[in-house]
Amino acid sequence: MSHPHPELSLPGPLPEGGVRIVPLGGLGEVGRNMAVIEYGGQLLVIDCGVLFPEDHQPGVDLILPDFEYLEDRLDDIQAVVLTHGHEDHIGAVPYLLKLKPDIPLVGSMLTLALVEAKLKEHRITPYTLGVKEGMREKLGVFDCEFVAVNHSIPDALAVFVRTPGGSILHTGDFKMDQLPLDGRLTDLRAFARLGEEGVDLFMTDSTNAEVPGFTTPERDIAPAIDKVFREAKRRIIVACFSSHVHRVQQVLDAAEKAGRKVAFVGRSMVRNMGIAADLGYLHVPDNVLVDIKKLDNLPDNEVVLISTGSQGEPMAALSRMANRDHRIEVGEGDTVLMASSLIPGNENAVYRVINGLMRLGATVVHKGNARVHVSGHASAGELLYCYNIVQPRNVMPVHGEWRHLVANAALAELAGVPADHIVIAEDGVVVDLIDGRARIVGAVPAGYVYVDGSAVGDFDEGLLKDRRILRDEGFISVIVVMDAATGKVLAGPEIQARGFAEDDEIFNQVRPKIEQALADAAGNGVTDSHQLEQVVRRAIGSWVGGKIRRRPMIIPVVIQA
Amino acid sequence: MSHPHPELSLPGPLPEGGVRIVPLGGLGEVGRNMAVIEYGGQLLVIDCGVLFPEDHQPGVDLILPDFEYLEDRLDDIQAVVLTHGHEDHIGAVPYLLKLKPDIPLVGSMLTLALVEAKLKEHRITPYTLGVKEGMREKLGVFDCEFVAVNHSIPDALAVFVRTPGGSILHTGDFKMDQLPLDGRLTDLRAFARLGEEGVDLFMTDSTNAEVPGFTTPERDIAPAIDKVFREAKRRIIVACFSSHVHRVQQVLDAAEKAGRKVAFVGRSMVRNMGIAADLGYLHVPDNVLVDIKKLDNLPDNEVVLISTGSQGEPMAALSRMANRDHRIEVGEGDTVLMASSLIPGNENAVYRVINGLMRLGATVVHKGNARVHVSGHASAGELLYCYNIVQPRNVMPVHGEWRHLVANAALAELAGVPADHIVIAEDGVVVDLIDGRARIVGAVPAGYVYVDGSAVGDFDEGLLKDRRILRDEGFISVIVVMDAATGKVLAGPEIQARGFAEDDEIFNQVRPKIEQALADAAGNGVTDSHQLEQVVRRAIGSWVGGKIRRRPMIIPVVIQA
Repeated sequence: MSHPHPELSLPGPLPEGGVRIVPLGGLGEVGRNMAVIEYGGQLLVIDCGVLFPEDHQPGVDLILPDFEYLEDRLDDIQAVVLTHGHEDHIGAVPYLLKLKPDIPLVGSMLTLALVEAKLKEHRITPYTLGVKEGMREKLGVFDCEFVAVNHSIPDALAVFVRTPGGSILHTGDFKMDQLPLDGRLTDLRAFARLGEEGVDLFMTDSTNAEVPGFTTPERDIAPAIDKVFREAKRRIIVACFSSHVHRVQQVLDAAEKAGRKVAFVGRSMVRNMGIAADLGYLHVPDNVLVDIKKLDNLPDNEVVLISTGSQGEPMAALSRMANRDHRIEVGEGDTVLMASSLIPGNENAVYRVINGLMRLGATVVHKGNARVHVSGHASAGELLYCYNIVQPRNVMPVHGEWRHLVANAALAELAGVPADHIVIAEDGVVVDLIDGRARIVGAVPAGYVYVDGSAVGDFDEGLLKDRRILRDEGFISVIVVMDAATGKVLAGPEIQARGFAEDDEIFNQVRPKIEQALADAAGNGVTDSHQLEQVVRRAIGSWVGGKIRRRPMIIPVVIQA
Repeated sequence: MSHPHPELSLPGPLPEGGVRIVPLGGLGEVGRNMAVIEYGGQLLVIDCGVLFPEDHQPGVDLILPDFEYLEDRLDDIQAVVLTHGHEDHIGAVPYLLKLKPDIPLVGSMLTLALVEAKLKEHRITPYTLGVKEGMREKLGVFDCEFVAVNHSIPDALAVFVRTPGGSILHTGDFKMDQLPLDGRLTDLRAFARLGEEGVDLFMTDSTNAEVPGFTTPERDIAPAIDKVFREAKRRIIVACFSSHVHRVQQVLDAAEKAGRKVAFVGRSMVRNMGIAADLGYLHVPDNVLVDIKKLDNLPDNEVVLISTGSQGEPMAALSRMANRDHRIEVGEGDTVLMASSLIPGNENAVYRVINGLMRLGATVVHKGNARVHVSGHASAGELLYCYNIVQPRNVMPVHGEWRHLVANAALAELAGVPADHIVIAEDGVVVDLIDGRARIVGAVPAGYVYVDGSAVGDFDEGLLKDRRILRDEGFISVIVVMDAATGKVLAGPEIQARGFAEDDEIFNQVRPKIEQALADAAGNGVTDSHQLEQVVRRAIGSWVGGKIRRRPMIIPVVIQA
């Protein structure tokens, strides 16, 4: 496990009466959000999410926070407060509960329902405590009050944590849509009241801190949706995140007005919308929803599909439609609405899907040619409102890459928070709040923990490097069978190579070189198979590097029989 | 070589008096632009560029147009007209000239200088013909007139090709900046004159056809550059494309005003700016330029570096600075200006560089927080001007993905070109212009040709699939040495596995299963090594798929000794 901050050492014990904050994820990346708050020997966890891998992490399924810091202190954890139901806030809960299944989960109804559905797949039944805005709960020594915030999923909460050592307001992910579709505002009156009471540390969402101005209200997307419904000649296919209940509500309402039926497509869409409808977050008009299998009985111009795959995920319904590998055959006259943001790194995949759908004759309405999505995060202008309303003593930007944290810190300073009361910490950096002042006091391990098939662990970067070499350069394996007694070559060199653009015949060139190298080694009395493998490795390496200018993985195998 | 349009067959011979257009690249992707025009048995090539690979093409260096269509007709090629000096228009020239080195290259001074520098690396000295706007040259039967256009590199040209069978106006890449930095306008008076004469086919740049309105003038970036120069406390590091002479000119001028010295960083930046200055496209103020090695003698606040690496390329100077792996040590107070667009797919790499530079203490000004770049391509509004001025008989959108071609076609139709006179073709689709009417008549092979190390060819998708499997799943190789006479196992199973997250010990579990499978096979009288390899493959496959739920590449090797 690498130490993220070589200049910082492990902190000493928390002084009596102090509050310690340890971000285990989400500070330095967008994802795997997790913070640990400590007071009086007790711990409170806020969020426990996953991060999705990038290209330079091939084969990785998910990235988790490192729980090492908690492993000896699981019994001290009073609860995990989940601010909302997105994967980057709840996705790592199953892995934490595998360490101790009875840690209580605290969150809103929808958040708990989503995390319970996820835990069910891991065969874990959690202890839960449902809360809502305005409620106040003692979680061990932590006196927690929950505050409504709006975001791109319903029922998101900020949490105000009172301890005898100081108070912390953590926004979770939020924005301040002043005309939200469901009428549930970010509760600035509560922010003001808590500010008057005194917020010692304000931990606030940095995702959009670089974006000037104000995030567009959700309802400003309505014209784009209306236009699609007005102009669509045949089917309408809407792709969006399977957690974006408000967006789905907008589409359901538009479908009802237009007299169209709606089918959900994709496992997570069906599951999440079922949960949202059961709990009353999604209001499904009568007789609008149909099963996808019943669509064949309906004329195309009376159909709406709401599907996953807005990020170009290759196995999702929308990609498969674009590849003509789905029961829904997209064709001339169909309209596809990509009602979602484009997560950086997904551009090429998304544009491949758009081009594929257009080739089949569909009209595609997307971010590039219409206003079809707004962000779920507060922009710079909104954050300034927050700072001015809360007037916190100390600020610690959370949720974002380094550039986002720095931009958020700059806003806090503009709003009058003294620069030396703003801590820019990254994952693992330990911040102590003592006598009303937040300071960096050290760092703990907080490296990436990879989920890869059935393996979970902090496997080293060497594995990812191996995969990158295999991906870019392939490998060449050479097998030689030698007589253990005489040192004579019994069989081989047998060459196996994959990932090369060259014809396999090219490897015939290296065979005599290997034989020569082995003969030379035998002449020098080398008989150890490990040493002989090094001889083979060198012979191949110099040929492959010189002749075909590659640096593949080289695997020599000398077997003595 | 796959056929891109299964519904289209190879076209018949071109009817006498007809003009044939065969796009070999750039229609269906952004890159490897190349079009072939045929009349009276003679061929004219317009552009010959490369495409850069995406993530799903691991290990590939470059993608070329497929020259197969030309291979038997190299002697018919009168010339290659190069519209401007970007890689996606000139990058494949060396590979074409390897087939026939004496095909003449025609282009502007700067374009030819850039392609000659590239050819020098391939040890090819080309035959060239320098042209400029307003000139008219007979290239075999093709009577070509060159028209000034502006773009993100100086000296770009459109070409008007007159043949007895009809006329074609090809824009190359262009925009219509009405206040260009160098005063060189896209010559709409020439477009108007050619339109009056009659443009039978208009081939026009689609890259920004989806973008509403007008591309911002280059000079609107000046305030962002001025702000950087006004506020920078220490060094200024500007990253931009090494072909963007105008942007470099802006920075040089700002540096002169501010009394700063400028050093170029990165091989292609040094080379291209040397060429541009020699030819008079870049005006280097006296005493501004210094060698990077001399910077140590200057105070930091008198230094500007202009560097490559604006796309996050890992080996470029800027990435290496962000990783503290460059002689320029970026630190507190330095300002980095990323004065370039962000090519889709590069987002994560670019943000890694930005975060790295910010962590070192630099202020980074980029697309996300300032207006630091404008596109080099005409937006929808400009394209409408073009269509209305030229009033072409037929339109064939070029340069873009399918979505861009479709958007451009829609603009042509809005401007009054009849829908049945607009051809949306993709690479390889053959368009004949006969009696003033352009029609799709068939298709020829136009698949991707990959450059991969020293190998160039149309290697099949199987190789890329192998690499993707190796990248995501790794491989497992099992070696068994058997006595050829008795069928007894002499050595092994020896297992080699790479790319797995699991500990190597897990593979011990499969050894007995392989031994059992081989024993069973021997009992059934199987002795052929190929059959035994299949036995081994099945034993491993079912274990690895069941036990650890992976689908790695499996390589069984049975050696009979």
